[in-house]
Amino acid sequence: MLPSDFISLAHDLADVAGAVIRPYYRARLHADEKRDLSPVTVADREAELAMRALIAARCPDHGIHGEEFGLENPDSPYRWVLDPIDGTRAFITGRPLFGTLIGLLHEGRPVLGVIDQPVTGERWLGVAGRPTVFRGTYGRAGTRTCRALADAELSATSPALLGDAKADFDRLAWLVRRVTWGGDCYAYGLLALGHIDIVAERGLRIWDWAALVPVIEGAGGRMTDWRGDALTVESAGDAVAVGDPSLLAGVVACLANGG
Amino acid sequence: MLPSDFISLAHDLADVAGAVIRPYYRARLHADEKRDLSPVTVADREAELAMRALIAARCPDHGIHGEEFGLENPDSPYRWVLDPIDGTRAFITGRPLFGTLIGLLHEGRPVLGVIDQPVTGERWLGVAGRPTVFRGTYGRAGTRTCRALADAELSATSPALLGDAKADFDRLAWLVRRVTWGGDCYAYGLLALGHIDIVAERGLRIWDWAALVPVIEGAGGRMTDWRGDALTVESAGDAVAVGDPSLLAGVVACLANGG
Repeated sequence: MLPSDFISLAHDLADVAGAVIRPYYRARLHADEKRDLSPVTVADREAELAMRALIAARCPDHGIHGEEFGLENPDSPYRWVLDPIDGTRAFITGRPLFGTLIGLLHEGRPVLGVIDQPVTGERWLGVAGRPTVFRGTYGRAGTRTCRALADAELSATSPALLGDAKADFDRLAWLVRRVTWGGDCYAYGLLALGHIDIVAERGLRIWDWAALVPVIEGAGGRMTDWRGDALTVESAGDAVAVGDPSLLAGVVACLANGG
Repeated sequence: MLPSDFISLAHDLADVAGAVIRPYYRARLHADEKRDLSPVTVADREAELAMRALIAARCPDHGIHGEEFGLENPDSPYRWVLDPIDGTRAFITGRPLFGTLIGLLHEGRPVLGVIDQPVTGERWLGVAGRPTVFRGTYGRAGTRTCRALADAELSATSPALLGDAKADFDRLAWLVRRVTWGGDCYAYGLLALGHIDIVAERGLRIWDWAALVPVIEGAGGRMTDWRGDALTVESAGDAVAVGDPSLLAGVVACLANGG
Protein backbone atom coordinates (compact mmCIF):
# COMPACT_ATOMS: atom_id res chain seq x y z
CA MET A 1 0.00 0.00 0.00
CA LEU A 2 1.47 3.29 -1.12
CA PRO A 3 1.48 6.05 1.56
CA SER A 4 -1.02 8.76 0.63
CA ASP A 5 1.68 11.36 1.36
CA PHE A 6 3.45 10.11 -1.77
CA ILE A 7 0.37 10.85 -3.87
CA SER A 8 0.12 14.38 -2.43
CA LEU A 9 3.79 14.89 -3.16
CA ALA A 10 3.31 13.73 -6.77
CA HIS A 11 0.52 16.29 -7.26
CA ASP A 12 2.63 19.03 -5.68
CA LEU A 13 5.57 18.14 -7.93
CA ALA A 14 3.36 18.47 -11.00
CA ASP A 15 2.07 21.82 -9.72
CA VAL A 16 5.52 23.31 -9.17
CA ALA A 17 6.81 22.01 -12.51
CA GLY A 18 3.81 23.52 -14.32
CA ALA A 19 4.29 26.90 -12.64
CA VAL A 20 7.92 26.94 -13.81
CA ILE A 21 7.18 25.74 -17.35
CA ARG A 22 4.15 27.82 -18.37
CA PRO A 23 5.95 31.19 -18.73
CA TYR A 24 8.38 29.59 -21.23
CA TYR A 25 5.63 28.09 -23.40
CA ARG A 26 5.43 29.97 -26.73
CA ALA A 27 7.95 32.50 -25.41
CA ARG A 28 9.56 34.34 -28.31
CA LEU A 29 13.30 34.56 -28.65
CA HIS A 30 15.15 37.62 -29.84
CA ALA A 31 17.53 36.72 -32.64
CA ASP A 32 20.61 37.37 -30.49
CA GLU A 33 19.41 34.88 -27.84
CA LYS A 34 19.35 31.97 -30.28
CA ARG A 35 22.88 30.90 -29.50
CA ASP A 36 22.26 30.76 -25.76
CA LEU A 37 20.13 28.17 -24.01
CA SER A 38 16.76 27.60 -25.62
CA PRO A 39 13.60 28.28 -23.59
CA VAL A 40 12.84 24.55 -23.53
CA THR A 41 16.24 23.79 -22.01
CA VAL A 42 15.90 26.48 -19.38
CA ALA A 43 12.34 25.40 -18.52
CA ASP A 44 13.41 21.75 -18.34
CA ARG A 45 16.28 22.47 -15.95
CA GLU A 46 14.44 24.92 -13.72
CA ALA A 47 11.42 22.62 -13.42
CA GLU A 48 13.61 19.64 -12.50
CA LEU A 49 15.47 21.68 -9.86
CA ALA A 50 12.15 22.82 -8.36
CA MET A 51 10.88 19.22 -8.18
CA ARG A 52 14.17 17.97 -6.71
CA ALA A 53 14.04 20.64 -4.01
CA LEU A 54 10.50 19.62 -3.06
CA ILE A 55 11.38 15.91 -2.87
CA ALA A 56 14.48 16.67 -0.81
CA ALA A 57 12.39 18.72 1.62
CA ARG A 58 9.62 16.15 2.06
CA CYS A 59 11.43 12.79 1.59
CA PRO A 60 15.16 13.49 1.97
CA ASP A 61 16.10 9.80 1.94
CA HIS A 62 14.32 9.05 -1.37
CA GLY A 63 16.24 8.50 -4.58
CA ILE A 64 15.79 10.94 -7.47
CA HIS A 65 16.59 10.24 -11.11
CA GLY A 66 15.98 13.14 -13.49
CA GLU A 67 16.81 13.62 -17.14
CA GLU A 68 18.84 16.78 -16.56
CA PHE A 69 20.65 16.26 -13.24
CA GLY A 70 21.23 12.52 -12.88
CA LEU A 71 20.76 10.13 -9.95
CA GLU A 72 20.77 10.93 -6.22
CA ASN A 73 20.43 8.47 -3.30
CA PRO A 74 20.80 5.42 -5.58
CA ASP A 75 20.38 2.92 -2.72
CA SER A 76 16.95 4.11 -1.54
CA PRO A 77 14.09 1.63 -2.07
CA TYR A 78 11.99 4.57 -3.36
CA ARG A 79 13.19 6.45 -6.42
CA TRP A 80 11.42 9.41 -8.08
CA VAL A 81 11.96 9.49 -11.84
CA LEU A 82 11.45 12.92 -13.43
CA ASP A 83 11.09 14.26 -16.96
CA PRO A 84 9.99 17.89 -16.69
CA ILE A 85 9.26 18.31 -20.42
CA ASP A 86 8.58 15.10 -22.34
CA GLY A 87 7.85 16.10 -25.93
CA THR A 88 10.49 18.71 -26.61
CA ARG A 89 9.43 19.13 -30.24
CA ALA A 90 5.82 19.75 -29.25
CA PHE A 91 6.99 22.36 -26.72
CA ILE A 92 9.31 24.06 -29.23
CA THR A 93 6.63 24.28 -31.92
CA GLY A 94 3.95 25.51 -29.49
CA ARG A 95 1.76 22.38 -29.43
CA PRO A 96 0.08 21.65 -26.06
CA LEU A 97 1.00 17.95 -26.33
CA PHE A 98 4.14 17.88 -24.19
CA GLY A 99 3.93 16.75 -20.59
CA THR A 100 5.64 16.59 -17.24
CA LEU A 101 6.31 12.97 -16.23
CA ILE A 102 6.67 12.03 -12.57
CA GLY A 103 7.20 8.37 -11.72
CA LEU A 104 7.92 6.61 -8.45
CA LEU A 105 9.75 3.28 -8.41
CA HIS A 106 9.71 0.98 -5.37
CA GLU A 107 12.45 -1.63 -5.49
CA GLY A 108 12.74 -0.87 -9.21
CA ARG A 109 9.04 -1.36 -9.97
CA PRO A 110 6.83 1.59 -11.06
CA VAL A 111 4.19 2.15 -8.35
CA LEU A 112 2.99 5.68 -9.11
CA GLY A 113 2.87 7.85 -12.22
CA VAL A 114 1.67 11.32 -13.17
CA ILE A 115 1.32 12.73 -16.68
CA ASP A 116 0.65 16.45 -16.40
CA GLN A 117 -0.14 18.84 -19.26
CA PRO A 118 0.41 22.26 -17.69
CA VAL A 119 -1.18 24.29 -20.49
CA THR A 120 -4.49 22.46 -20.90
CA GLY A 121 -4.61 21.63 -17.17
CA GLU A 122 -5.01 17.90 -17.84
CA ARG A 123 -3.52 15.44 -15.36
CA TRP A 124 -3.43 11.65 -15.25
CA LEU A 125 -2.59 9.88 -11.96
CA GLY A 126 -1.85 6.15 -11.86
CA VAL A 127 -1.15 4.19 -8.68
CA ALA A 128 -0.32 0.46 -8.77
CA GLY A 129 -3.42 -1.57 -7.97
CA ARG A 130 -5.87 1.33 -8.26
CA PRO A 131 -7.93 2.77 -11.11
CA THR A 132 -6.28 5.63 -12.97
CA VAL A 133 -7.73 9.08 -12.29
CA PHE A 134 -7.98 11.76 -14.99
CA ARG A 135 -8.52 15.45 -14.28
CA GLY A 136 -9.61 17.41 -17.34
CA THR A 137 -12.63 18.95 -19.03
CA TYR A 138 -12.92 16.29 -21.74
CA GLY A 139 -12.74 12.53 -21.34
CA ARG A 140 -12.50 10.01 -18.54
CA ALA A 141 -9.94 7.38 -17.57
CA GLY A 142 -10.35 3.87 -18.97
CA THR A 143 -9.00 2.18 -22.09
CA ARG A 144 -11.41 0.96 -24.74
CA THR A 145 -12.15 -2.51 -26.04
CA CYS A 146 -10.39 -3.30 -29.33
CA ARG A 147 -10.16 -6.96 -30.20
CA ALA A 148 -8.59 -6.81 -33.66
CA LEU A 149 -5.47 -5.10 -34.99
CA ALA A 150 -7.52 -4.11 -38.05
CA ASP A 151 -9.66 -1.85 -35.81
CA ALA A 152 -6.76 -0.34 -33.89
CA GLU A 153 -5.58 3.26 -33.85
CA LEU A 154 -1.74 3.24 -33.63
CA SER A 155 0.33 6.22 -32.56
CA ALA A 156 4.06 6.95 -32.59
CA THR A 157 6.09 10.11 -32.15
CA SER A 158 8.02 10.32 -35.42
CA PRO A 159 9.22 8.03 -38.21
CA ALA A 160 12.69 9.49 -37.60
CA LEU A 161 12.85 8.00 -34.08
CA LEU A 162 12.31 4.40 -35.20
CA GLY A 163 15.83 3.97 -36.56
CA ASP A 164 16.65 0.39 -37.53
CA ALA A 165 13.27 -0.83 -36.22
CA LYS A 166 11.36 0.81 -39.06
CA ALA A 167 10.66 -2.53 -40.77
CA ASP A 168 9.29 -4.01 -37.52
CA PHE A 169 7.11 -0.96 -36.98
CA ASP A 170 5.91 -0.99 -40.59
CA ARG A 171 4.80 -4.61 -40.25
CA LEU A 172 2.49 -3.48 -37.46
CA ALA A 173 1.49 -0.27 -39.26
CA TRP A 174 0.23 -2.29 -42.26
CA LEU A 175 -2.13 -4.32 -40.08
CA VAL A 176 -3.78 -1.55 -38.08
CA ARG A 177 -6.60 0.72 -39.08
CA ARG A 178 -4.65 3.96 -38.96
CA VAL A 179 -1.35 5.47 -37.80
CA THR A 180 -1.11 8.97 -36.34
CA TRP A 181 2.19 10.73 -35.67
CA GLY A 182 3.21 13.05 -32.88
CA GLY A 183 2.28 12.97 -29.28
CA ASP A 184 5.04 11.68 -27.00
CA CYS A 185 3.58 11.10 -23.51
CA TYR A 186 0.27 12.70 -24.53
CA ALA A 187 -0.43 9.73 -26.80
CA TYR A 188 -0.20 7.39 -23.79
CA GLY A 189 -2.61 9.68 -21.96
CA LEU A 190 -5.04 9.42 -24.87
CA LEU A 191 -4.66 5.63 -24.82
CA ALA A 192 -5.59 5.72 -21.12
CA LEU A 193 -8.74 7.69 -22.08
CA GLY A 194 -9.74 5.17 -24.76
CA HIS A 195 -9.01 7.20 -27.90
CA ILE A 196 -5.91 5.36 -29.12
CA ASP A 197 -5.34 1.58 -29.00
CA ILE A 198 -1.59 1.10 -29.45
CA VAL A 199 1.51 3.24 -28.92
CA ALA A 200 4.86 1.81 -30.03
CA GLU A 201 8.13 3.64 -29.61
CA ARG A 202 11.87 3.19 -29.38
CA GLY A 203 14.64 4.91 -27.52
CA LEU A 204 12.70 5.54 -24.32
CA ARG A 205 14.74 6.23 -21.19
CA ILE A 206 13.49 5.33 -17.73
CA TRP A 207 12.12 8.85 -17.13
CA ASP A 208 10.11 8.48 -20.36
CA TRP A 209 8.24 5.33 -19.31
CA ALA A 210 8.26 4.96 -15.49
CA ALA A 211 5.32 7.34 -15.01
CA LEU A 212 3.37 5.81 -17.89
CA VAL A 213 3.15 2.22 -16.64
CA PRO A 214 0.89 2.87 -13.60
CA VAL A 215 -1.32 5.25 -15.62
CA ILE A 216 -1.83 2.74 -18.43
CA GLU A 217 -2.23 -0.36 -16.30
CA GLY A 218 -4.62 1.43 -13.92
CA ALA A 219 -6.73 2.41 -16.95
CA GLY A 220 -7.00 -1.24 -18.04
CA GLY A 221 -4.13 -1.42 -20.54
CA ARG A 222 -0.70 -3.03 -20.65
CA MET A 223 2.74 -1.55 -21.18
CA THR A 224 5.78 -3.74 -21.96
CA ASP A 225 8.88 -3.88 -24.13
CA TRP A 226 8.62 -5.02 -27.78
CA ARG A 227 8.87 -8.69 -26.69
CA GLY A 228 5.97 -8.38 -24.28
CA ASP A 229 8.19 -8.42 -21.18
CA ALA A 230 7.84 -6.03 -18.25
CA LEU A 231 9.87 -2.84 -18.53
CA THR A 232 12.72 -2.71 -16.01
CA VAL A 233 15.59 -0.37 -15.27
CA GLU A 234 17.66 -2.61 -17.56
CA SER A 235 15.20 -2.41 -20.51
CA ALA A 236 16.64 -1.39 -23.86
CA GLY A 237 14.16 1.41 -24.45
CA ASP A 238 11.64 -0.14 -26.82
CA ALA A 239 8.16 0.15 -25.37
CA VAL A 240 4.64 -0.69 -26.44
CA ALA A 241 1.34 0.15 -24.78
CA VAL A 242 -2.02 -1.39 -25.64
CA GLY A 243 -5.39 -0.28 -24.36
CA ASP A 244 -7.00 -3.70 -24.75
CA PRO A 245 -4.67 -6.37 -23.26
CA SER A 246 -5.87 -8.91 -25.84
CA LEU A 247 -4.04 -6.91 -28.54
CA LEU A 248 -0.64 -7.41 -26.92
CA ALA A 249 0.19 -10.84 -28.37
CA GLY A 250 -0.52 -9.74 -31.95
CA VAL A 251 1.37 -6.48 -31.55
CA VAL A 252 4.40 -8.23 -30.08
CA ALA A 253 4.33 -10.82 -32.87
CA CYS A 254 4.77 -7.97 -35.37
CA LEU A 255 7.32 -5.93 -33.46
CA ALA A 256 9.54 -8.73 -32.17
CA ASN A 257 9.65 -10.68 -35.40
CA GLY A 258 12.67 -8.98 -36.86
CA GLY A 259 14.35 -8.11 -33.54
CA MET B 1 -12.77 47.65 -47.16
CA LEU B 2 -14.56 44.71 -45.63
CA PRO B 3 -17.80 45.55 -43.78
CA SER B 4 -17.33 45.09 -40.04
CA ASP B 5 -20.60 43.13 -40.00
CA PHE B 6 -18.76 40.37 -41.85
CA ILE B 7 -16.15 40.16 -39.10
CA SER B 8 -18.87 39.92 -36.43
CA LEU B 9 -20.54 37.19 -38.48
CA ALA B 10 -17.26 35.27 -38.75
CA HIS B 11 -16.84 35.34 -34.95
CA ASP B 12 -20.46 34.26 -34.47
CA LEU B 13 -19.98 31.39 -36.93
CA ALA B 14 -16.96 30.16 -34.97
CA ASP B 15 -18.94 30.43 -31.73
CA VAL B 16 -21.89 28.36 -32.99
CA ALA B 17 -19.62 25.75 -34.57
CA GLY B 18 -17.66 25.38 -31.32
CA ALA B 19 -20.84 24.98 -29.28
CA VAL B 20 -21.94 22.15 -31.60
CA ILE B 21 -18.55 20.44 -31.73
CA ARG B 22 -17.41 20.45 -28.07
CA PRO B 23 -19.90 17.81 -26.79
CA TYR B 24 -18.61 15.34 -29.42
CA TYR B 25 -14.93 15.83 -28.51
CA ARG B 26 -13.61 12.71 -26.75
CA ALA B 27 -17.13 11.29 -26.68
CA ARG B 28 -17.00 7.52 -26.20
CA LEU B 29 -18.83 5.18 -28.53
CA HIS B 30 -20.64 2.06 -27.42
CA ALA B 31 -19.51 -0.90 -29.48
CA ASP B 32 -22.90 -1.20 -31.22
CA GLU B 33 -22.73 2.38 -32.44
CA LYS B 34 -19.52 1.79 -34.35
CA ARG B 35 -21.28 0.94 -37.59
CA ASP B 36 -23.38 4.11 -37.56
CA LEU B 37 -22.07 7.59 -38.17
CA SER B 38 -18.95 8.44 -36.20
CA PRO B 39 -19.02 11.35 -33.72
CA VAL B 40 -16.70 13.34 -35.95
CA THR B 41 -19.05 12.97 -38.92
CA VAL B 42 -22.08 13.99 -36.89
CA ALA B 43 -20.25 16.96 -35.36
CA ASP B 44 -18.97 18.04 -38.78
CA ARG B 45 -22.42 17.98 -40.35
CA GLU B 46 -24.28 19.59 -37.47
CA ALA B 47 -21.70 22.37 -37.16
CA GLU B 48 -21.86 23.11 -40.89
CA LEU B 49 -25.67 23.23 -40.82
CA ALA B 50 -25.58 25.63 -37.86
CA MET B 51 -23.13 27.91 -39.68
CA ARG B 52 -25.14 27.77 -42.92
CA ALA B 53 -28.30 28.74 -41.05
CA LEU B 54 -26.58 31.75 -39.50
CA ILE B 55 -25.18 32.96 -42.83
CA ALA B 56 -28.58 32.50 -44.51
CA ALA B 57 -30.22 34.56 -41.76
CA ARG B 58 -27.71 37.43 -41.84
CA CYS B 59 -26.56 37.50 -45.48
CA PRO B 60 -29.10 35.50 -47.50
CA ASP B 61 -27.58 36.50 -50.86
CA HIS B 62 -24.04 35.33 -49.98
CA GLY B 63 -22.58 32.16 -51.45
CA ILE B 64 -21.71 29.25 -49.13
CA HIS B 65 -19.29 26.43 -49.93
CA GLY B 66 -18.94 23.80 -47.23
CA GLU B 67 -17.17 20.48 -47.14
CA GLU B 68 -20.30 18.53 -46.23
CA PHE B 69 -23.18 20.23 -48.06
CA GLY B 70 -21.72 21.72 -51.23
CA LEU B 71 -22.17 25.12 -52.90
CA GLU B 72 -25.11 27.53 -52.57
CA ASN B 73 -25.58 30.89 -54.38
CA PRO B 74 -22.62 30.26 -56.71
CA ASP B 75 -22.99 33.63 -58.48
CA SER B 76 -22.67 35.83 -55.38
CA PRO B 77 -19.50 38.00 -55.24
CA TYR B 78 -19.11 36.95 -51.59
CA ARG B 79 -18.66 33.26 -50.77
CA TRP B 80 -18.21 31.77 -47.29
CA VAL B 81 -16.02 28.67 -47.31
CA LEU B 82 -16.52 26.35 -44.34
CA ASP B 83 -14.68 23.39 -42.86
CA PRO B 84 -16.24 22.67 -39.45
CA ILE B 85 -13.57 20.14 -38.39
CA ASP B 86 -10.24 20.41 -40.15
CA GLY B 87 -7.99 17.73 -38.67
CA THR B 88 -10.29 14.74 -38.45
CA ARG B 89 -7.53 12.45 -37.16
CA ALA B 90 -6.67 14.86 -34.37
CA PHE B 91 -10.35 15.03 -33.41
CA ILE B 92 -10.77 11.25 -33.53
CA THR B 93 -7.71 10.59 -31.38
CA GLY B 94 -8.59 13.31 -28.85
CA ARG B 95 -5.86 15.82 -29.69
CA PRO B 96 -6.87 19.50 -29.35
CA LEU B 97 -5.19 20.35 -32.67
CA PHE B 98 -8.20 20.26 -34.99
CA GLY B 99 -9.90 23.51 -35.95
CA THR B 100 -12.94 25.13 -37.46
CA LEU B 101 -12.03 27.01 -40.64
CA ILE B 102 -14.17 29.91 -41.84
CA GLY B 103 -13.07 31.76 -44.95
CA LEU B 104 -14.69 34.52 -46.97
CA LEU B 105 -13.89 34.96 -50.67
CA HIS B 106 -14.67 38.17 -52.55
CA GLU B 107 -14.63 37.69 -56.31
CA GLY B 108 -12.69 34.48 -55.68
CA ARG B 109 -10.00 36.11 -53.51
CA PRO B 110 -9.71 35.27 -49.76
CA VAL B 111 -10.46 38.44 -47.78
CA LEU B 112 -11.22 37.03 -44.30
CA GLY B 113 -10.22 33.92 -42.41
CA VAL B 114 -10.82 32.42 -38.98
CA ILE B 115 -9.03 29.44 -37.44
CA ASP B 116 -10.87 28.46 -34.27
CA GLN B 117 -9.83 25.78 -31.76
CA PRO B 118 -12.99 25.24 -29.72
CA VAL B 119 -11.36 23.17 -26.95
CA THR B 120 -8.41 25.40 -26.05
CA GLY B 121 -10.41 28.56 -26.85
CA GLU B 122 -7.77 29.82 -29.29
CA ARG B 123 -8.88 31.87 -32.29
CA TRP B 124 -6.97 33.48 -35.16
CA LEU B 125 -8.67 36.20 -37.27
CA GLY B 126 -7.14 37.41 -40.51
CA VAL B 127 -8.59 40.19 -42.67
CA ALA B 128 -6.97 41.23 -45.95
CA GLY B 129 -4.85 44.33 -45.45
CA ARG B 130 -4.92 44.19 -41.64
CA PRO B 131 -2.71 42.60 -38.98
CA THR B 132 -3.84 39.16 -37.85
CA VAL B 133 -5.39 39.02 -34.38
CA PHE B 134 -4.87 36.04 -32.04
CA ARG B 135 -7.04 35.34 -29.01
CA GLY B 136 -5.48 32.85 -26.61
CA THR B 137 -3.59 32.57 -23.33
CA TYR B 138 -0.21 31.81 -24.89
CA GLY B 139 1.44 33.58 -27.81
CA ARG B 140 0.77 36.57 -30.05
CA ALA B 141 0.21 36.99 -33.77
CA GLY B 142 3.22 37.61 -35.97
CA THR B 143 5.53 35.30 -37.91
CA ARG B 144 9.21 35.15 -36.99
CA THR B 145 12.31 36.01 -38.94
CA CYS B 146 14.03 32.97 -40.49
CA ARG B 147 16.46 33.74 -43.28
CA ALA B 148 17.91 30.29 -43.97
CA LEU B 149 16.28 26.91 -44.71
CA ALA B 150 18.85 25.36 -42.39
CA ASP B 151 17.24 27.21 -39.44
CA ALA B 152 13.65 26.45 -40.42
CA GLU B 153 11.09 24.36 -38.56
CA LEU B 154 8.99 22.48 -41.17
CA SER B 155 5.61 20.93 -40.44
CA ALA B 156 3.33 18.61 -42.41
CA THR B 157 0.32 16.56 -41.45
CA SER B 158 1.38 13.03 -42.36
CA PRO B 159 3.87 11.29 -44.66
CA ALA B 160 0.90 9.28 -45.98
CA LEU B 161 -0.75 12.41 -47.41
CA LEU B 162 2.21 13.35 -49.62
CA GLY B 163 1.54 10.64 -52.22
CA ASP B 164 3.68 10.96 -55.35
CA ALA B 165 5.16 14.22 -54.07
CA LYS B 166 7.18 12.48 -51.38
CA ALA B 167 10.47 12.96 -53.25
CA ASP B 168 9.79 16.71 -53.64
CA PHE B 169 8.93 17.02 -49.97
CA ASP B 170 11.99 15.02 -48.91
CA ARG B 171 14.25 17.36 -50.88
CA LEU B 172 12.96 20.18 -48.69
CA ALA B 173 13.00 18.06 -45.52
CA TRP B 174 16.71 17.36 -45.95
CA LEU B 175 17.56 21.06 -46.03
CA VAL B 176 15.59 22.28 -43.01
CA ARG B 177 16.51 22.12 -39.36
CA ARG B 178 13.69 19.82 -38.29
CA VAL B 179 10.40 18.27 -39.48
CA THR B 180 7.43 17.77 -37.16
CA TRP B 181 4.36 15.77 -38.14
CA GLY B 182 0.72 16.32 -37.30
CA GLY B 183 -1.18 19.52 -37.01
CA ASP B 184 -3.46 20.26 -39.96
CA CYS B 185 -4.74 23.86 -39.66
CA TYR B 186 -3.21 24.21 -36.19
CA ALA B 187 0.27 24.13 -37.75
CA TYR B 188 -0.63 27.19 -39.86
CA GLY B 189 -1.84 28.89 -36.68
CA LEU B 190 1.51 28.15 -35.02
CA LEU B 191 3.30 29.54 -38.07
CA ALA B 192 1.23 32.73 -37.66
CA LEU B 193 2.45 32.89 -34.01
CA GLY B 194 6.10 32.50 -35.03
CA HIS B 195 6.76 28.94 -33.77
CA ILE B 196 6.98 27.16 -37.14
CA ASP B 197 8.62 28.51 -40.31
CA ILE B 198 7.25 26.37 -43.15
CA VAL B 199 4.14 24.23 -43.68
CA ALA B 200 3.93 22.21 -46.92
CA GLU B 201 0.98 20.01 -47.79
CA ARG B 202 -0.84 18.37 -50.67
CA GLY B 203 -4.44 17.57 -51.39
CA LEU B 204 -5.94 20.72 -49.84
CA ARG B 205 -9.44 21.64 -50.94
CA ILE B 206 -10.64 25.23 -51.00
CA TRP B 207 -12.20 24.94 -47.54
CA ASP B 208 -8.80 23.79 -46.22
CA TRP B 209 -6.88 26.87 -47.35
CA ALA B 210 -9.26 29.82 -47.92
CA ALA B 211 -9.34 30.76 -44.23
CA LEU B 212 -5.59 30.30 -43.83
CA VAL B 213 -4.38 32.82 -46.43
CA PRO B 214 -5.61 36.02 -44.65
CA VAL B 215 -4.39 34.70 -41.26
CA ILE B 216 -0.89 33.96 -42.56
CA GLU B 217 -0.48 37.01 -44.75
CA GLY B 218 -1.80 39.30 -41.99
CA ALA B 219 0.80 37.79 -39.64
CA GLY B 220 3.62 38.65 -42.05
CA GLY B 221 3.91 35.34 -43.93
CA ARG B 222 3.09 34.09 -47.42
CA MET B 223 0.89 31.23 -48.61
CA THR B 224 1.01 29.97 -52.21
CA ASP B 225 0.95 26.77 -54.24
CA TRP B 226 4.15 24.70 -54.65
CA ARG B 227 5.23 26.88 -57.60
CA GLY B 228 4.93 30.07 -55.57
CA ASP B 229 1.74 31.20 -57.36
CA ALA B 230 -1.31 32.54 -55.55
CA LEU B 231 -3.88 29.93 -54.52
CA THR B 232 -7.11 30.23 -56.53
CA VAL B 233 -10.32 28.27 -56.77
CA GLU B 234 -8.65 26.41 -59.66
CA SER B 235 -5.52 25.45 -57.64
CA ALA B 236 -4.56 21.80 -57.63
CA GLY B 237 -4.37 21.52 -53.86
CA ASP B 238 -0.66 21.76 -53.13
CA ALA B 239 0.00 24.58 -50.69
CA VAL B 240 2.97 26.00 -48.87
CA ALA B 241 3.12 28.64 -46.16
CA VAL B 242 6.23 30.44 -44.97
CA GLY B 243 6.53 32.72 -41.97
CA ASP B 244 9.44 34.70 -43.39
CA PRO B 245 8.65 35.66 -47.02
CA SER B 246 12.35 35.47 -47.92
CA LEU B 247 12.16 31.67 -47.47
CA LEU B 248 9.61 31.24 -50.25
CA ALA B 249 11.98 31.16 -53.24
CA GLY B 250 14.16 28.44 -51.68
CA VAL B 251 11.17 26.38 -50.58
CA VAL B 252 9.56 26.55 -54.01
CA ALA B 253 12.85 25.62 -55.67
CA CYS B 254 12.79 22.36 -53.68
CA LEU B 255 9.11 21.57 -54.03
CA ALA B 256 8.57 22.50 -57.67
CA ASN B 257 11.74 20.87 -58.94
CA GLY B 258 10.26 17.50 -59.63
CA GLY B 259 6.71 18.70 -60.34
